[in-house]
Amino acid sequence: MPIVLRTVKQVRQWRSALCQAQKSVGFVPTMGALHHGHLSLVHQSQADNDATVVSIFVNPSQFGPTEDLDAYPRTLDDDLAQLEAANVEAVFVPKVSEMYPSGIVLDVNEQRGAFVEVKGCSHQLEGVTRPQFFRGVATVVCKLLNVVQPTRVYFGQKDAQQCVVVRNMVKDLLIDTEVKVLPTQREPSGLALSSRNAYLSDTTKDESKAIYQALSQGKQLWVDDATVKGTDIVDLVQKQLVDSGLQVEYVACSHPETLDDLTDKVVPGAIVSTAVHVPRAQGTGTARLIDNVILE
Amino acid sequence: MPIVLRTVKQVRQWRSALCQAQKSVGFVPTMGALHHGHLSLVHQSQADNDATVVSIFVNPSQFGPTEDLDAYPRTLDDDLAQLEAANVEAVFVPKVSEMYPSGIVLDVNEQRGAFVEVKGCSHQLEGVTRPQFFRGVATVVCKLLNVVQPTRVYFGQKDAQQCVVVRNMVKDLLIDTEVKVLPTQREPSGLALSSRNAYLSDTTKDESKAIYQALSQGKQLWVDDATVKGTDIVDLVQKQLVDSGLQVEYVACSHPETLDDLTDKVVPGAIVSTAVHVPRAQGTGTARLIDNVILE
Repeated sequence: MPIVLRTVKQVRQWRSALCQAQKSVGFVPTMGALHHGHLSLVHQSQADNDATVVSIFVNPSQFGPTEDLDAYPRTLDDDLAQLEAANVEAVFVPKVSEMYPSGIVLDVNEQRGAFVEVKGCSHQLEGVTRPQFFRGVATVVCKLLNVVQPTRVYFGQKDAQQCVVVRNMVKDLLIDTEVKVLPTQREPSGLALSSRNAYLSDTTKDESKAIYQALSQGKQLWVDDATVKGTDIVDLVQKQLVDSGLQVEYVACSHPETLDDLTDKVVPGAIVSTAVHVPRAQGTGTARLIDNVILE
Repeated sequence: MPIVLRTVKQVRQWRSALCQAQKSVGFVPTMGALHHGHLSLVHQSQADNDATVVSIFVNPSQFGPTEDLDAYPRTLDDDLAQLEAANVEAVFVPKVSEMYPSGIVLDVNEQRGAFVEVKGCSHQLEGVTRPQFFRGVATVVCKLLNVVQPTRVYFGQKDAQQCVVVRNMVKDLLIDTEVKVLPTQREPSGLALSSRNAYLSDTTKDESKAIYQALSQGKQLWVDDATVKGTDIVDLVQKQLVDSGLQVEYVACSHPETLDDLTDKVVPGAIVSTAVHVPRAQGTGTARLIDNVILE
């Protein structure tokens, strides 16, 4: 079994011994409900570093008051079994009070204490419907990096905007770690792996393969003609998604560092991303799926 | 001469060697224009730690567009001479671009990049007239702590609200350092030492001794009767300041951790603080002086 660290103090003790031995530490922050996407980050961390620590923490401050904080899948025993099988050294599983010593409420206007905001790349795309999401993400990642002080930290490309926000935060706050972003892991159908796929029926999962198909067709436009306009890529992806019967929230072609809209000629590394809503397997309402491809 | 470190990379190299030797590092962040108040922090750091580093950086993000960023006293040669005389090991003197890799403009609405905000203790007192001040302070202190990774960091009690903001930030963001707050250093008259005292004529300096006298009389009320109301202390200080001909911006009696107003019975450690405006020696307008006493 990996060592299960419950407190900030325990992590610091574990880290301190490695620091004195001049060992490198890779860090994979997660909200649990681990899948092969997370494990691909773990494996890369193990290849790059002397030791690897995974955190499992469902971060309340990145959920809005009406979002799925309570319903978010929590599968700790299964997560620990997967990390044991992967020979991970340590798992950090803090309580909310450990990560938010001043407490945390979901209503932003009632919140007290320190928060990190990355201006310029937090309020478009995902940030339109989830205006406090990236403030929550940046805040918890900042805290986790301060606790773990990893040599390298690993994120999946699936959460493209999160990667941009974290990269900018690490750069701006002068945090001494290297941010590594690894490719999105997918089902054989092409559907991006996500903990929230647990909300989907098999039928919906199958229909949702159209998301990656549409993004891939958009990318192909650029592969065929590097002078294509961002708006043309977006229009094609949008049409494909709608033709597949999906409920589209947005499609965008964005600058890889600023997330500014690329309406004219695109730059290498540009991100073509989308969010769609699909039916939930149980109960009413929809689940929100995101995916993206990189023009590279 | 102390080693003058100009870049983040140079500081990390200097720090890394000390880390491997398991040496403790004390850190005194300043905006330069050093006086005996700063030196008292340096001396305490030297007593507590194996090595001491002082930063000199006039932080643009804590100045409003109409404030005295350009006029703020800059006396680098004299500062370095004082730090040499004090046997300080290292001085970090970064350029703005080193601390703000995404750039920085004073208009908050135009800013991009990562910022730290400490909600609940940033918008009363000093924050009323300087709404972005503590966001700027928290952001730069977070960056500096990430660069220096000190064992202990030193602040002067004169900037009482800054001390509360920084303490809360270090606690909430789980930053691995100990915050030490040392007593305000004063002129023989009682006037708190401040780099902005350079703006004052000798006459104004002499008249400004009334600030500490008024605060001390407020504190005496509590010494004489620990059940005195916060409002009674505030009223007395306010009256004394006005009677001395000073232009008062605020007087407050505040909780030492939340900065909530203490209108009824006070708690031990409560902060009685004030800001006043006095004439500048040169040009028009006023200089703003702050001071406080602790009920302990």
